[in-house]
Amino acid sequence: MRTVFWESDQLKLIDQRRLPASLQVNGYSRSGQVAQAIRDMVVRGAPAIGVAAAFGVALAARESKAATARELVGDLEKAVPMLRAARPTAANLGWAVDRMLRSARDFNGNASELRRHVLNEAQRMADEDVEINRRMARHGATLIEDGDTIIHHCNTGALAAVDWGTALGAIRMAHEDGKRVHVLVDETRPRLQGARLTAWELDQYGMSYEIISDSMAGHFLRRGEAQKAMFGADRVAANGDVANKIGTYMLSLAARDNGVPAYAVVPTSSIDLALADGNLIPIEERDPAEVLQIEVGGERVVPEHARARNPAFDVTPSRLISAIVTENGIGYPPYDVSLPELKLA
Amino acid sequence: MRTVFWESDQLKLIDQRRLPASLQVNGYSRSGQVAQAIRDMVVRGAPAIGVAAAFGVALAARESKAATARELVGDLEKAVPMLRAARPTAANLGWAVDRMLRSARDFNGNASELRRHVLNEAQRMADEDVEINRRMARHGATLIEDGDTIIHHCNTGALAAVDWGTALGAIRMAHEDGKRVHVLVDETRPRLQGARLTAWELDQYGMSYEIISDSMAGHFLRRGEAQKAMFGADRVAANGDVANKIGTYMLSLAARDNGVPAYAVVPTSSIDLALADGNLIPIEERDPAEVLQIEVGGERVVPEHARARNPAFDVTPSRLISAIVTENGIGYPPYDVSLPELKLA
Repeated sequence: MRTVFWESDQLKLIDQRRLPASLQVNGYSRSGQVAQAIRDMVVRGAPAIGVAAAFGVALAARESKAATARELVGDLEKAVPMLRAARPTAANLGWAVDRMLRSARDFNGNASELRRHVLNEAQRMADEDVEINRRMARHGATLIEDGDTIIHHCNTGALAAVDWGTALGAIRMAHEDGKRVHVLVDETRPRLQGARLTAWELDQYGMSYEIISDSMAGHFLRRGEAQKAMFGADRVAANGDVANKIGTYMLSLAARDNGVPAYAVVPTSSIDLALADGNLIPIEERDPAEVLQIEVGGERVVPEHARARNPAFDVTPSRLISAIVTENGIGYPPYDVSLPELKLA
Repeated sequence: MRTVFWESDQLKLIDQRRLPASLQVNGYSRSGQVAQAIRDMVVRGAPAIGVAAAFGVALAARESKAATARELVGDLEKAVPMLRAARPTAANLGWAVDRMLRSARDFNGNASELRRHVLNEAQRMADEDVEINRRMARHGATLIEDGDTIIHHCNTGALAAVDWGTALGAIRMAHEDGKRVHVLVDETRPRLQGARLTAWELDQYGMSYEIISDSMAGHFLRRGEAQKAMFGADRVAANGDVANKIGTYMLSLAARDNGVPAYAVVPTSSIDLALADGNLIPIEERDPAEVLQIEVGGERVVPEHARARNPAFDVTPSRLISAIVTENGIGYPPYDVSLPELKLA
C-alpha cells in the first residue's frame, strides 16, 4: 500500500495522526482540503507532502470551471501558492507544485485534456517517487554494515514518501539484504513520529528496534552502542547544511563527538541549490499545543496556562554531516553545488 | 513548605508524581516505605533523596526492637544497604546514609537516646541542605546577567532539594535580585520533570518561562536565543565529569558548539572524589514503561509490544562543563580534586 495514492477520483492519504492505533485512509476531493491535510500533518515527510501537493494541483484543475487551457493554467497559478504555503520548510513542496505548473504551462491541448494531463503528471511523480526512493535506499544500504545499531530520527520510511522512504528505506534495504541491523528509534518529540510511525513500520518489516527518548542518543553513542546515525532532510542548502526535524542537530553533534558517522538520505528534490547556506532556510514554528498536549496516565502533564515554543525543524551545519545520500549516489564533503549527487537529474 | 520534612512522627514527602495536577503530601512511618518512595520517584533530586534517606535511617532506628545502642547500630547497618540501593546514580544517597551511620556509631548513650539522636541528625541534615542550597544559589546567581535566557534541564528547584534547589535555586536567586531572566524549560523526557515540576515552580515564583522539547535546545542556541545552560548533577567525578539527568550531555554539546557556557550547580555532597572519572559512575536504567507510557488525546502513542531503553542519566565529560558551582564557590576548569570548591567542608 502507498501512503499517497489516487483512487475513485480522490486523493487518498493514510491518516498518520491515527497511527499506530488505527490504519485509516482519508479521501480528498478539493485542493484546499489537501493543503489543510498537509498543514495538519495527516500526511508528513518531505517526499510525501510533495506528491500530495502535486495531486492537490490536479484537484485544483478539476475544481476549475475554466473553459480553455489558458484559463485553467491561470486558475492553477492561483491555487499553487495556497499549497506551497501549507508548510514552509520542506523543499519538495515548492518543487512539486512548480513542476506541476511548468508541466501545465508547457502542455498543448484543450482544458479537459489538460485536466487529464495534470492528473497523469501527479501520478507520474508518485511513481517516480517510489523509484527514486528505491535508488536512495540501495545507495544508503551500502553504508550499513552487518551488525550495526543505527540511531534514526523522526520517520523517514514508507509513510514519509509514497513508498520506501529515505533513511529508513536504506535501513530496510540493508535488512532485506540480510544484514543484521538494530534501530534505536528516537521518539522525536513533540509529534512523536518515531514512537508512532517508525516503530510501527519496523514492526511491519519484522525488524529489531527499541524506542528511546531523543535526549538518550548521546548516552548510547558515548557507550559505543550505536555505529551510525541516519535521518532524512526537508531541505538541503547548496553548502550541505541540512534542515530536518527538530533534534537532528543535537543528534549530529553527539554522533560527531563520538566519531560516529551521521548520514542524511534525501532525494535531490529536497536540495535547494538556490540557498547558499542553512541559515536561509525558513524554519516553521508550529502551535505550542503540540508540546503541551503530552499526557501520562490520562492526565495532562504541564501546568495550566504553561507556555511553550515549538520550532518544527532545525539546521545541522554541513560540517556535522558525514555524507548525503541521494538517488544519484553518495556525496561526501566538501559539499559543493557541482557534486553530481546533489543535482536534480 | 519543604519538599522533605518530619511531622507527627512521620517523614512527609511532597508526592512529585502528582504535580502539577495536585499538591499531595504523603507520610511514611517505615524505612522500607521510604526506600520504595525513592525508587518510585515520589521524591527525586539528588539533595532531596539524600535527606529522605537520612530520615529513612531515623525510621529504621524506631522500627528496631534493639535494647542496647550497640544492637541498634547493628540494625541500622542492616537497614542502610536497602536505602542506599534505592537508586544507584546520585552520590548524595550514599553520602547521607553513611553520615547517619557514622553519627550513630560515634554516639555515646543508650538505645532510646540514640533513636532521638539519629532523628535529630536527619533533621540537622535537612536544615543544612536548605542553607547549603541557599549558598549555592547565591554563588550561581553571580553567573547570571540581567536579560539572560537560560536553558534549564530537568528539575533542580526546591522540589529537588529540601528547599531552593541547585541550578533553579541560582536562577530564582537572580530573579529575586531583580535580574530579568527567561527560562527555556527542557521538558526532560521521559519523566518530564521539567514540564511537570520546573514549570510549576516557575509559576509559583512568578517567573518567565517557556517549555521546550529537549531536542529543541540546539536550535535556540544556534539562533543565539539563549545565553546560558544550567543544570544540577547527581554525581560528579574527581575529574569534573558530571552524571546528571539523561539529556544533559547533548545539551552541553550544543551549548559548547555555540560558545554558550554550561554550568553544573551541585552541593559538594554530590561530588565523589573516589571516582577518577565519569565512566565509573553507575548509570541507572529504569523501566522502559516510562518511555512507552506517553499519551496524546487519551490514546497511547507507541505500538503495542513496542520495546524501549531507559537510561535515567548520562555522563557529560568535564571538557563541556564551563564551571561547577558548589556551596563553597565557583570552580573553573581544569577541575582537580585540590579545588576547594569541590571539597566537602
